Amino acid sequence: MTTFLSDDFLLNTETAKRLYHEHAERMPIIDYHCHVSPKEIYENKTFRNITEIWLGGDHYKWRLMRSHGIPERYITGDAGDYEKFEKFASVLPYAIGNPMYTWCHLELKRYFGFTGVLSPKTCREVWDLTEKILTSGQFGARDIILKSGVTFIGTTDDPIDDLRYHKLLKNDPDFSVTVAPTFRPDKAININKAGFCDYIGALSKVTGINITCVSDLVKALAMRMDHFGALGCRATDYGLDTMVYLEDCQYDLDEIFARGMKEEWLSPEEAEAFKTSLLRFCAEECTKRGWVMQLHYNCMRNPNRSMFCALGPDSGFDCIGPNPSSAARLAGFLDSMYRANALPKTVIYSLDANDNAFIDAVIGSFQNEGVRGLLQHGSAWWFNDNKQGMKDQMTSLANLSILGNFIGMLTDSRSFLSYTRHEYFRRILCALIGEWVENGEYPNDPEMLSEIVEGISYYNAKRYFDL
Amino acid sequence: MTTFLSDDFLLNTETAKRLYHEHAERMPIIDYHCHVSPKEIYENKTFRNITEIWLGGDHYKWRLMRSHGIPERYITGDAGDYEKFEKFASVLPYAIGNPMYTWCHLELKRYFGFTGVLSPKTCREVWDLTEKILTSGQFGARDIILKSGVTFIGTTDDPIDDLRYHKLLKNDPDFSVTVAPTFRPDKAININKAGFCDYIGALSKVTGINITCVSDLVKALAMRMDHFGALGCRATDYGLDTMVYLEDCQYDLDEIFARGMKEEWLSPEEAEAFKTSLLRFCAEECTKRGWVMQLHYNCMRNPNRSMFCALGPDSGFDCIGPNPSSAARLAGFLDSMYRANALPKTVIYSLDANDNAFIDAVIGSFQNEGVRGLLQHGSAWWFNDNKQGMKDQMTSLANLSILGNFIGMLTDSRSFLSYTRHEYFRRILCALIGEWVENGEYPNDPEMLSEIVEGISYYNAKRYFDL
Amino acid sequence: MTTFLSDDFLLNTETAKRLYHEHAERMPIIDYHCHVSPKEIYENKTFRNITEIWLGGDHYKWRLMRSHGIPERYITGDAGDYEKFEKFASVLPYAIGNPMYTWCHLELKRYFGFTGVLSPKTCREVWDLTEKILTSGQFGARDIILKSGVTFIGTTDDPIDDLRYHKLLKNDPDFSVTVAPTFRPDKAININKAGFCDYIGALSKVTGINITCVSDLVKALAMRMDHFGALGCRATDYGLDTMVYLEDCQYDLDEIFARGMKEEWLSPEEAEAFKTSLLRFCAEECTKRGWVMQLHYNCMRNPNRSMFCALGPDSGFDCIGPNPSSAARLAGFLDSMYRANALPKTVIYSLDANDNAFIDAVIGSFQNEGVRGLLQHGSAWWFNDNKQGMKDQMTSLANLSILGNFIGMLTDSRSFLSYTRHEYFRRILCALIGEWVENGEYPNDPEMLSEIVEGISYYNAKRYFDL
Repeated sequence: MTTFLSDDFLLNTETAKRLYHEHAERMPIIDYHCHVSPKEIYENKTFRNITEIWLGGDHYKWRLMRSHGIPERYITGDAGDYEKFEKFASVLPYAIGNPMYTWCHLELKRYFGFTGVLSPKTCREVWDLTEKILTSGQFGARDIILKSGVTFIGTTDDPIDDLRYHKLLKNDPDFSVTVAPTFRPDKAININKAGFCDYIGALSKVTGINITCVSDLVKALAMRMDHFGALGCRATDYGLDTMVYLEDCQYDLDEIFARGMKEEWLSPEEAEAFKTSLLRFCAEECTKRGWVMQLHYNCMRNPNRSMFCALGPDSGFDCIGPNPSSAARLAGFLDSMYRANALPKTVIYSLDANDNAFIDAVIGSFQNEGVRGLLQHGSAWWFNDNKQGMKDQMTSLANLSILGNFIGMLTDSRSFLSYTRHEYFRRILCALIGEWVENGEYPNDPEMLSEIVEGISYYNAKRYFDL
Repeated sequence: MTTFLSDDFLLNTETAKRLYHEHAERMPIIDYHCHVSPKEIYENKTFRNITEIWLGGDHYKWRLMRSHGIPERYITGDAGDYEKFEKFASVLPYAIGNPMYTWCHLELKRYFGFTGVLSPKTCREVWDLTEKILTSGQFGARDIILKSGVTFIGTTDDPIDDLRYHKLLKNDPDFSVTVAPTFRPDKAININKAGFCDYIGALSKVTGINITCVSDLVKALAMRMDHFGALGCRATDYGLDTMVYLEDCQYDLDEIFARGMKEEWLSPEEAEAFKTSLLRFCAEECTKRGWVMQLHYNCMRNPNRSMFCALGPDSGFDCIGPNPSSAARLAGFLDSMYRANALPKTVIYSLDANDNAFIDAVIGSFQNEGVRGLLQHGSAWWFNDNKQGMKDQMTSLANLSILGNFIGMLTDSRSFLSYTRHEYFRRILCALIGEWVENGEYPNDPEMLSEIVEGISYYNAKRYFDL
Repeated sequence: MTTFLSDDFLLNTETAKRLYHEHAERMPIIDYHCHVSPKEIYENKTFRNITEIWLGGDHYKWRLMRSHGIPERYITGDAGDYEKFEKFASVLPYAIGNPMYTWCHLELKRYFGFTGVLSPKTCREVWDLTEKILTSGQFGARDIILKSGVTFIGTTDDPIDDLRYHKLLKNDPDFSVTVAPTFRPDKAININKAGFCDYIGALSKVTGINITCVSDLVKALAMRMDHFGALGCRATDYGLDTMVYLEDCQYDLDEIFARGMKEEWLSPEEAEAFKTSLLRFCAEECTKRGWVMQLHYNCMRNPNRSMFCALGPDSGFDCIGPNPSSAARLAGFLDSMYRANALPKTVIYSLDANDNAFIDAVIGSFQNEGVRGLLQHGSAWWFNDNKQGMKDQMTSLANLSILGNFIGMLTDSRSFLSYTRHEYFRRILCALIGEWVENGEYPNDPEMLSEIVEGISYYNAKRYFDL
């Protein structure tokens, strides 16, 4: 038996232990997709206590507390910080098998040296210990990042963002970690969501382009991409409810745009025509610029409308959104870009793990010469970001594609303590490979195994994002 | 190697063995959803032989025999009891890896002390042994229930049922097990199925309400709920082909009802409008009464129409009914109840295991304060009621929700010998948890582990159903 | 640890080892569905080097190379044979966990005695070794088949094929292996694909029937079936993008046929009506002739249109095609044949592994007396033809049906070296069964286990295809 979070936890073969400790563990971290705040990095934000850093914005934890019947007052409400933490500590022990259980304890162990178990009994002890460290003056955002071995952070940014803090960070000689923006133009694409008109107005203002038609819009977006590019942007990202693609569109896109600006009703097909056009434009720009395109889809946003009204988006009420028609749309989109000879490096993530095999198969239909793994199946995302989800994603990817080219893990997190998820991922990776080797399916070749493990942990992403 | 059905079968770690033998095994059984007959319990029904109790109504076994090419005569036909059993014994050995294999032998071992293997060679021996015990006068339905450690049975009952045997059982001082009805109003909801008009007629008669519109209908149903409640009902249940939900219905439901009563054609949308309305009413009533709502969906009923004509429903010809659109419908339904502040305790079961992760995600979007696990993902159901299905359901539930709040197993069975399925489930549960503990993912904390295992085996259901 | 491809690789229990070495390994091979060329068998085709036999037509390998960014010139282009092999050898080491990795090394080991690892370092050595053996004059197609222990090969043939080589093979006293054609009338069914009219013209010519309506067409097909039957045909096969079935068709099928012949546009429903009619006819014929019907569906063909234009079909650009509506169509089709009392032995394959459980459930709804496993869930197909895919397919089949009746593996291959996939399959089968036995779920009964393992490896297919 491996004891809880011991050095060898999750590493159930000798090969796995060796691969992890001699290779995976030693690699720096490239966190190419996350949601941390560049402002907080720049200002080396400190946290007053564990509640602020753990429960201040982590909707995974909020969900867990709600699942236990904890009143909202202790989650996002006006209860005191210690009360909130106490409630969380009362819930966590029941979350056996949940990645949150492992993540929390890994964070306590790696960042605070706490090797016990969080529970109502140890709640005060953990509170005191973490508070002391958090307020020690040596535990700001930058300290955590450095301590974690991170060399690159890709934040997620809106086209109208001035990227002020990215600029400051770029010019700060005291901080060696590269922090680059990621261009996420969801609001410019979602023509049928509330706020589109205001958003376009803001984009007009930022760019000085009076946006009255689609060609104005794409000109404005390209201008912002230039701005992002100057600050080291390597990637774009799209959060789509379902994948969109409408072929050979006969619509007048300027007319659709005009109606969208008046917040008039658009048919689903009209909205999709507009979105397809924008997505294709962005893909072309990615190709030109050598950027990576990230597509996230099959997500059901805000199904609980009462709580959406009360707390807004990203409060822990989203859900997986199964939609088999995304498959044909994705294939259509990839085909259209391939035919135009403008398919960029693309990373595909579906929130529905039933799509794994399809994604692994479809990327194989559009790979192209010159890049090892031009198309990638993104790491197990969000609800799939757990041992089983990662194992399934990697097994399917290995079966249908080339695992050795996989660009690996990202945190997708809002918290600076989440870098331990890379550790979690790397252990699972090594366990998986260890099993194949010890099962006689792959030779016990130290050189090749180290190249594969170090590649997936670090070098593949470095190469793919041109770092 | 663990020998066949030894004390430790399925328990592949030391932790699993300990958790099972010291905790799970010792818990009583709450069988909150099954299809046994209250009449047979009341009358302490005895069985003339193994064929009557095994092959009299178990469509799982019928299916297995048909898969082997056995003529229907030996399945539901006029062959003799021994002949039928002999045929079954000739099929079973080929069903390696099928839960039926394990269930059958567990039943033979636990109830009849037979520790061998059923096959054509042992068929006569098993026949004789079981016949002797079944006809011993000490092996009635009540004896089996008591011997199995059952403390609560939730049967499945139609609103028009007079519940006579539930009343008799309730007043019987000689039987300590609680047998409660479950309110299953499928026939009042399925407006577009044959027999709706007759059914409403019968409901009118039972309630004394002349049902001519929807408000009459719900009044009648509420009256029957009162009747069920008086006899200890704790739950309702709905067997839906696909989940139903139609928002903001503009239809005149009374007009739809009137046409349904004339068995006129209704559009799918009209039928769904009616069903949504009834389902919402029932949910509100559950909330008022503190009852649990159970939703079963994505089932394809009677695809083999020849055999449906020949043998009627529930004869072993149903099938999984994949329908991705059930996801959005379920989310819509939960949202509508949440907004009305009337979402009851709800247990969701899909027959399509591809829906597991969606269900585990969507319940997290609608949990509410005051109840640990207000929304539950029901135990692996029917075609999923096997080792892999249970493991998958619990792994997904653990990943996306709180496994420690899970209300656990039910038999869903028509047979009194099926209680061993609780043993099967508990072993799989302990194996799963044991693996996590021995893998270093959860601390080896005897107190918390025993609370979790005993909770899922017994206490969580006790609390959830207010027993 | 088991060393790479050692005698016991993949066999992770003592039971598995015993079952494999004492039973599975000793069975002959029935390769009832493949795409090898009868001409090449008849002519005992030899290969000039490893590139010809490995990279000449294997689109799995082409895909892998493209996934690594290898230019098309080295894949299907004009690069030299050694250059191509060198490129492939540079890619393969990264494909850890891919069945291709195992298959390649198994082929090198079993056919060429190479026990090392293919990589850029060993590339020349492997080239030389394999060239020597391939050109030795003792390594023609027939030699490989015989060396592999194959006793039956079911090729895949078009109705208009003259089957000349099947006839020659049948009459060749020097070759003991039965090579039978399989009737695959896709081109006669796909009324809405380009080339339909030409194809019908060719069929008219071959049969001497001037095909002007549906009844002519089915007469012509039946005539060709007679021809196939005379040469030992045991099965038909259908490659469908999605399953097709349209009930109670009100269409004038002759009018649809006439428009199809003029390559006029047909509505999806019209095309489906026509296809349903043809599929039903073929099923009836199978029933009459005692043939097996194979249905392959949920495949996305040629999504990459540029490469389809450049290289044509079957060049490694196809993809899984998820389509949940295939489920209801399949059930409807089976029902229609069952009602007509004309449901043949049918093997169902979906390219989407999410359909596994549905298929295993639906076959149980239509089994019929007289045949053990009249309906079969086909072995994990194409993108699922890997360890996980096979394990999943067999686990689901075991759970919902009778694994002991499974007809087992086929190569589906274009290459004569693929017979080692049977070894791969049998090891996985034995590992799965070994796990159940050692877990205490099935008795360690040598007699029954050998019957099951030998059945799935060989005897079940022998019986099912009437060999």
